[in-house]
Amino acid sequence: MDQSHMHYIIDTFFLLFSSVLIIFMVPGFAMLEAGLVRSKNVSAVLTGNVMLYAITSFIFLLWGYNNMFGGNGFFLEGVTTDGYSPYAYFLFQMAFVSKTVSIMSGGVSERIRIIPFMIFAVLMSGFIYPIVGNAIWGGGFLKEVHDLAGCTVIHSVGGWALLAGILVLGARRGRYSKEGQIRAIPASNIPLVTLGGMLLWIGWFGFNGGSAFHISSVENADLVGLIIVNTNTAGLAGAIIAAMIVYIQYRKLDITMILNGALGGLVAITAGADVVGLWEPIIIGAVGGTLVVFAIPLFDKFKIDDPVGALSVHLVNGIWGTIAVALFADFSLVTQLKGIAITGLFTFPVSYVAFVIIKKVIGLRSDEEHEYVGLDLEECGLEAYPEFIKSKV
Amino acid sequence: MDQSHMHYIIDTFFLLFSSVLIIFMVPGFAMLEAGLVRSKNVSAVLTGNVMLYAITSFIFLLWGYNNMFGGNGFFLEGVTTDGYSPYAYFLFQMAFVSKTVSIMSGGVSERIRIIPFMIFAVLMSGFIYPIVGNAIWGGGFLKEVHDLAGCTVIHSVGGWALLAGILVLGARRGRYSKEGQIRAIPASNIPLVTLGGMLLWIGWFGFNGGSAFHISSVENADLVGLIIVNTNTAGLAGAIIAAMIVYIQYRKLDITMILNGALGGLVAITAGADVVGLWEPIIIGAVGGTLVVFAIPLFDKFKIDDPVGALSVHLVNGIWGTIAVALFADFSLVTQLKGIAITGLFTFPVSYVAFVIIKKVIGLRSDEEHEYVGLDLEECGLEAYPEFIKSKV
Amino acid sequence: MDQSHMHYIIDTFFLLFSSVLIIFMVPGFAMLEAGLVRSKNVSAVLTGNVMLYAITSFIFLLWGYNNMFGGNGFFLEGVTTDGYSPYAYFLFQMAFVSKTVSIMSGGVSERIRIIPFMIFAVLMSGFIYPIVGNAIWGGGFLKEVHDLAGCTVIHSVGGWALLAGILVLGARRGRYSKEGQIRAIPASNIPLVTLGGMLLWIGWFGFNGGSAFHISSVENADLVGLIIVNTNTAGLAGAIIAAMIVYIQYRKLDITMILNGALGGLVAITAGADVVGLWEPIIIGAVGGTLVVFAIPLFDKFKIDDPVGALSVHLVNGIWGTIAVALFADFSLVTQLKGIAITGLFTFPVSYVAFVIIKKVIGLRSDEEHEYVGLDLEECGLEAYPEFIKSKV
Repeated sequence: MDQSHMHYIIDTFFLLFSSVLIIFMVPGFAMLEAGLVRSKNVSAVLTGNVMLYAITSFIFLLWGYNNMFGGNGFFLEGVTTDGYSPYAYFLFQMAFVSKTVSIMSGGVSERIRIIPFMIFAVLMSGFIYPIVGNAIWGGGFLKEVHDLAGCTVIHSVGGWALLAGILVLGARRGRYSKEGQIRAIPASNIPLVTLGGMLLWIGWFGFNGGSAFHISSVENADLVGLIIVNTNTAGLAGAIIAAMIVYIQYRKLDITMILNGALGGLVAITAGADVVGLWEPIIIGAVGGTLVVFAIPLFDKFKIDDPVGALSVHLVNGIWGTIAVALFADFSLVTQLKGIAITGLFTFPVSYVAFVIIKKVIGLRSDEEHEYVGLDLEECGLEAYPEFIKSKV
Repeated sequence: MDQSHMHYIIDTFFLLFSSVLIIFMVPGFAMLEAGLVRSKNVSAVLTGNVMLYAITSFIFLLWGYNNMFGGNGFFLEGVTTDGYSPYAYFLFQMAFVSKTVSIMSGGVSERIRIIPFMIFAVLMSGFIYPIVGNAIWGGGFLKEVHDLAGCTVIHSVGGWALLAGILVLGARRGRYSKEGQIRAIPASNIPLVTLGGMLLWIGWFGFNGGSAFHISSVENADLVGLIIVNTNTAGLAGAIIAAMIVYIQYRKLDITMILNGALGGLVAITAGADVVGLWEPIIIGAVGGTLVVFAIPLFDKFKIDDPVGALSVHLVNGIWGTIAVALFADFSLVTQLKGIAITGLFTFPVSYVAFVIIKKVIGLRSDEEHEYVGLDLEECGLEAYPEFIKSKV
Repeated sequence: MDQSHMHYIIDTFFLLFSSVLIIFMVPGFAMLEAGLVRSKNVSAVLTGNVMLYAITSFIFLLWGYNNMFGGNGFFLEGVTTDGYSPYAYFLFQMAFVSKTVSIMSGGVSERIRIIPFMIFAVLMSGFIYPIVGNAIWGGGFLKEVHDLAGCTVIHSVGGWALLAGILVLGARRGRYSKEGQIRAIPASNIPLVTLGGMLLWIGWFGFNGGSAFHISSVENADLVGLIIVNTNTAGLAGAIIAAMIVYIQYRKLDITMILNGALGGLVAITAGADVVGLWEPIIIGAVGGTLVVFAIPLFDKFKIDDPVGALSVHLVNGIWGTIAVALFADFSLVTQLKGIAITGLFTFPVSYVAFVIIKKVIGLRSDEEHEYVGLDLEECGLEAYPEFIKSKV
């Protein structure tokens, strides 16, 4: 067995390992979001999450991957890979694509209909994401932007599209009173929120670690180790700072905010986990967690109704994390800002127009009665917890 | 370190990795089935799943493994392995065995008593499965059948035994009225169903991918990558087609059917993921998902009461997947059919007789009162959700 | 690529793989404990579990790791590693530390306040655990004790500290009547208990397997395989024996006891999985499971109120497993007992004093009213299941 074969084998195994971790984020997002919404909308959220994974991965297999990496047709044809199995590389890249819409799924929940959202998911996985991905990761005109595992390519893209979706959809009925008051809507199942948050955290090790692509040299083995440690550190810092802030504010340790703080930290480190040392992720993650805690009420102030805090976690920290690379490592702030701006200027209007068209043509939102009784019966024909007697929320 | 050592090390690591993924299917089946049954029977189903894993793995360690792979005694004695640690190979094979009865567990749920079922599990893991496994995978007289990870050896064996079990047990009381109507019994916990389905999906990557046994050559690294991609593709196709069919039929996206469609696709690709290209799994999985959607009501028509759709997922698609190998790759249809037929002709009657004997000797089924109030109190002495006030179902 | 590089790469990958498995134990403990307590205390338990992971890992990064492995400062500075990435080794060791307090979390649940417990967690991860760890694993004066993955270093340390905590805290109000009767308090969510138990089981493969540190030789590949098989076998044996005993006692298969039996077996094999053959883990695990079943009521007899059975699982079996090494392999019983005794004589009084001081200074326990209505509202400001109407427990 010659040396290059050994690289090929180990890096292929490493990409498969990383891909599996990322795919744990599918149940991760599903559980997180199912726990955060009201029980009458849980099945719709779960169905959305499963179908998003199925549809976006399928589109990516058919042509999205090819679009993104400059192939010349469909499936894996013509995409060149660098020292590992093309199948493992495809799997790894495919594992990313559903994240762009899983991010959105909680934010548009409790009022979006599933099928119109799936149509948007086709657009995202077949066009929007491959175009941005090609520009930054596929050797395109933004290839100077340093974005290890997708602060901009994944989280901001999902975040901008979510913002567009929320603006077109509008808030959940009853969320904001005419007098400007915000009605608190509690999460229905805290163990699911916790399970989902932790599965995402673990999946992130594959997300960021795998983005080194190679583990088969001493330098890369160290790099992958560093990335995973840094990823974890930013999550720790985000959780701890969020806990401290909510405790100071309310004398309560709100676990949903703590987990969102952790996720904020994890998003924030996603662009630069490979180019900073061991202490920087503490700052980057702590800022990330802080941003989440303050951004969540801010969006509400502008009546941008995001039931799970996804804009604060993914969009705000997608931007912060991309900037942080320039602040904590030797990269151009201008280039990073250019990446952020162009991604937003492309993704937001395209998504907005897409949602408006979908709304005009087939409708986007559940009607008032179904929203009141919950989307589960109308969209899925079943309840999530049919036997448990529920109080009205 | 010489070359063969390197193969040994990497392939051992790969088998351990695959085994761990497969063992995630234990909570996978447990959550799926616990979510699909009524809350009064949830603890019994969970106890069954944990005990099935414990008992079948234990029997397989004691003598089942030895029986299956032509050893000469107990434990791992005399079983030869090919270029990886015998412990890793045992763990991998052991991870398979409980699947044969986990498959059954949901189908016989809500009326089977735990201990008689455990007695059957001893028989399955100590005799039935090793005999079929030896014939096809252990170099026996059906070794020409191509069955990568057990469409026939695992899924059909479990499926035939389940069919026998259901026929001996009979339907749940109240499921079929005298006028021939079918009473719908809704799943009690949709997040658990989704979590379980996704854990199974992820576990399948180890199930099928690990069945290549070796990753330590360029060819095998590609092969493992291809198998995992194909496995995933068939799952995607099964989910999407099931969603389309139920939407056309009922205008509802029934998540339980979508997940069963995905599982049907995953079973269907299990025999041939290694011998087809990238597009064939779309067809194989889509046919698998379609079969599930149409088989579920068909079994009900014949009053074969399968609370979770396991016959449709595992038996029907175990057969379909084994046939698909001959349709989409260069294998003999006659040989594949021979494998299917002999497996059925052996497993079904042996299982049927075993269930009849167990029924005669110690009883198989909960009595009417316990079935009405739920098996949890009688079998486990506790309720799954004692604090939640439940509506009668 | 020279030979030593290959070792470095593969062992780094192996440590990262093992670390990820161990971190799955974070949601594992969280789900187990959330399922075992009453629904009014579920959020507090979940918050505790997430914060314990965040805080202990953070302290360990800052200085605990350095303390434990004889570095000369903070972070990873000056800690030498042996043929793998220092980052991967840190991650692996860091994954262990939160276990020492996750073990405790269920045992002090339903009456401890979160912040005082977090202060203890700082002490544990910054001092108590690094001191014991240094003595046994860091080349200190107990380095002759054979303790593969921490029967003493992790499980006994956590167990002794838990015993101290319970004694200082006292029992839950209403648990023991003045007439000496014990009021049964049922687990609120059995699927979560099962999920958590199985995630712990799977995480244990990384816990014990990874403690071989190296997989990159034929001997070590075999060793890792053996360890994981033995770990699993002890879990099987613990589950099966617990099931048999509770069935004989009550004619019920109590799944919470079966899972605790499995966990008891898993703890018991943790010291010696690497130095016994294939059948010894059956005995070691079966004794472990038996000890759990009999210790749980025994602690209750002494009014030591442990809501989840953690003392029986971790302390009793931490001791038993450390002794078992001497009984089943060629190690000195005196040395093993010395390790057990010194660990207890250090950990218990230090923890006791720490809990007393925390109690005096800021209080340790929820007041009567909050304990009655549940800790979730007071500590976290939210309920775990706000929509489900609950019976009073």
